Amino acid sequence: MSKLLIVGTVAFDAIETPFGKTDKILGGAGTYIGLSAAQFNVRSSIVSVVGDDFPGSYLEMLENNNIDISGIEVVEGGKTFFWSGKYHNDLNSRDTLDTQLNVLADFNPVVPEDFKDAEVLMLGNLHPSIQIDVIKQMERRPKLIILDTMNFWMDNTWDELMEVISMVDVITINDEEARQLTKEYSLVKAAQKIHEIGPKYVVIKKGEHGALLFNDHNIFFAPALPLEEVFDPTGAGDTFAGGFAGYLTKSGDISFENMKNAIICGSNMASFCVEKFGTERLENVSKAEIQERLKQFKELTQFEIELS
Amino acid sequence: MSKLLIVGTVAFDAIETPFGKTDKILGGAGTYIGLSAAQFNVRSSIVSVVGDDFPGSYLEMLENNNIDISGIEVVEGGKTFFWSGKYHNDLNSRDTLDTQLNVLADFNPVVPEDFKDAEVLMLGNLHPSIQIDVIKQMERRPKLIILDTMNFWMDNTWDELMEVISMVDVITINDEEARQLTKEYSLVKAAQKIHEIGPKYVVIKKGEHGALLFNDHNIFFAPALPLEEVFDPTGAGDTFAGGFAGYLTKSGDISFENMKNAIICGSNMASFCVEKFGTERLENVSKAEIQERLKQFKELTQFEIELS
Repeated sequence: MSKLLIVGTVAFDAIETPFGKTDKILGGAGTYIGLSAAQFNVRSSIVSVVGDDFPGSYLEMLENNNIDISGIEVVEGGKTFFWSGKYHNDLNSRDTLDTQLNVLADFNPVVPEDFKDAEVLMLGNLHPSIQIDVIKQMERRPKLIILDTMNFWMDNTWDELMEVISMVDVITINDEEARQLTKEYSLVKAAQKIHEIGPKYVVIKKGEHGALLFNDHNIFFAPALPLEEVFDPTGAGDTFAGGFAGYLTKSGDISFENMKNAIICGSNMASFCVEKFGTERLENVSKAEIQERLKQFKELTQFEIELS
Repeated sequence: MSKLLIVGTVAFDAIETPFGKTDKILGGAGTYIGLSAAQFNVRSSIVSVVGDDFPGSYLEMLENNNIDISGIEVVEGGKTFFWSGKYHNDLNSRDTLDTQLNVLADFNPVVPEDFKDAEVLMLGNLHPSIQIDVIKQMERRPKLIILDTMNFWMDNTWDELMEVISMVDVITINDEEARQLTKEYSLVKAAQKIHEIGPKYVVIKKGEHGALLFNDHNIFFAPALPLEEVFDPTGAGDTFAGGFAGYLTKSGDISFENMKNAIICGSNMASFCVEKFGTERLENVSKAEIQERLKQFKELTQFEIELS
């Protein structure tokens, strides 16, 4: 079975949406990526760091989802990374209320021996130097390296960000960030400029408006599933990336045609994520529900028009 | 051959985009709908009104596109409807600089005898009382009535708008207008509420983010084709509606499955419209270009994932 190595935060979130608010709950990019990829029955491992305030029950839950946690360092006397945010009424934008880096400030990732030959490496949104460090720890270059990042690193660590982008096969980035990175408003032009930095595949996430996959002049689009209610968008982008990485790891086929399927699987997983607070829905989604919703994606997008 | 009756403005537009500006050029919802539907080789007629300042060459161009213009009244001594607008840098929003109703203020639509039995009626964005008037002039109810409208009528003629919406099969409306009409943020819920007013089919247009087709619990999504450059979005929504109506008129099949194809054809035509100022691209697009771009829509959206 192929192996997926995930690097990303494992954290506490406190979330407020128009529908309610939470106390500190389980969050973090690594967590969402891991739980989403777990649905594809891959061998995965999360490299991360938490404080000793992090509940053992959360780590157990990850293990019960067949995720190796030997790469999650627990810092004695340390406090876990904490993020708090409040969503606006349309759920399309949010204010960060609090960010406490805590143990993340001194994070030195250590890749478990057993995952140094992972076929797929998913670099969740983190300081680009940490992402580079992890790539360098691999004993051979993974078949596929996927990078997620955000505008914060463009503003603060431009050179390191450019270096890590040049090292990967796939980048996932949201539409505004793609525009900021390239100074191009057209997403087609933005993707072309990102190709020039390195990644052969560029995934531009547009939230409720879906996601675009670019590979030179090939383009694929996956919509977000239209939902009656979006409850909490937190983690949707990471869940999308986790489904994408999980599907590719399981299938072992990294062609553009198969990446189309992977993008759909990512959108599918994200559609569950947003239905409840935090990771709740991802922890309880069934294989049958995932298959059923995959059918909905087919009905939503497939058409039979004849070309003359 | 099936007949398509179109009601909508035939007008002058003056447009300013980040890429340039025009003097008074040919515009109007009826014009865009007609030119777009013309690509499907249907017999169509536009019901509208212009002043005697309207160039005969424009009318000839419409006739050369096989559009019956006997329903376009030319008012002696009257001036043609004029709209002027300036797009913001992202092309997603615009300011109206000037609106002169002119002859449109006293428009009494007269449906040509030969089109009173049209199978498909496309009601372009106009005063709802005019739209109702046209429906009542038909000698038998068309197989399919499609309505386009906008927020202006919600603000100013609510009761008449509700009446005409209750009389049609399909409504096309943009996302913000659907939300305003129903007081629902979720487009799924908004479509459900619009179904309750009457239309069995609800098309929600999201501009560069594509369009959704709802029929009870069935949903279909067509993306906009990602383009390197959008030059002028004027008329894109009407061109979309014209392609939708033209395809359905030609095929004669108004099932939900075939409406999926029609939505794709609408998006396809709209992708040409935005490439040049005004109607320029629509006047010159070839059948081969349309077919080629239909292939691009397939590649953009079709995937082969196996359901287990």
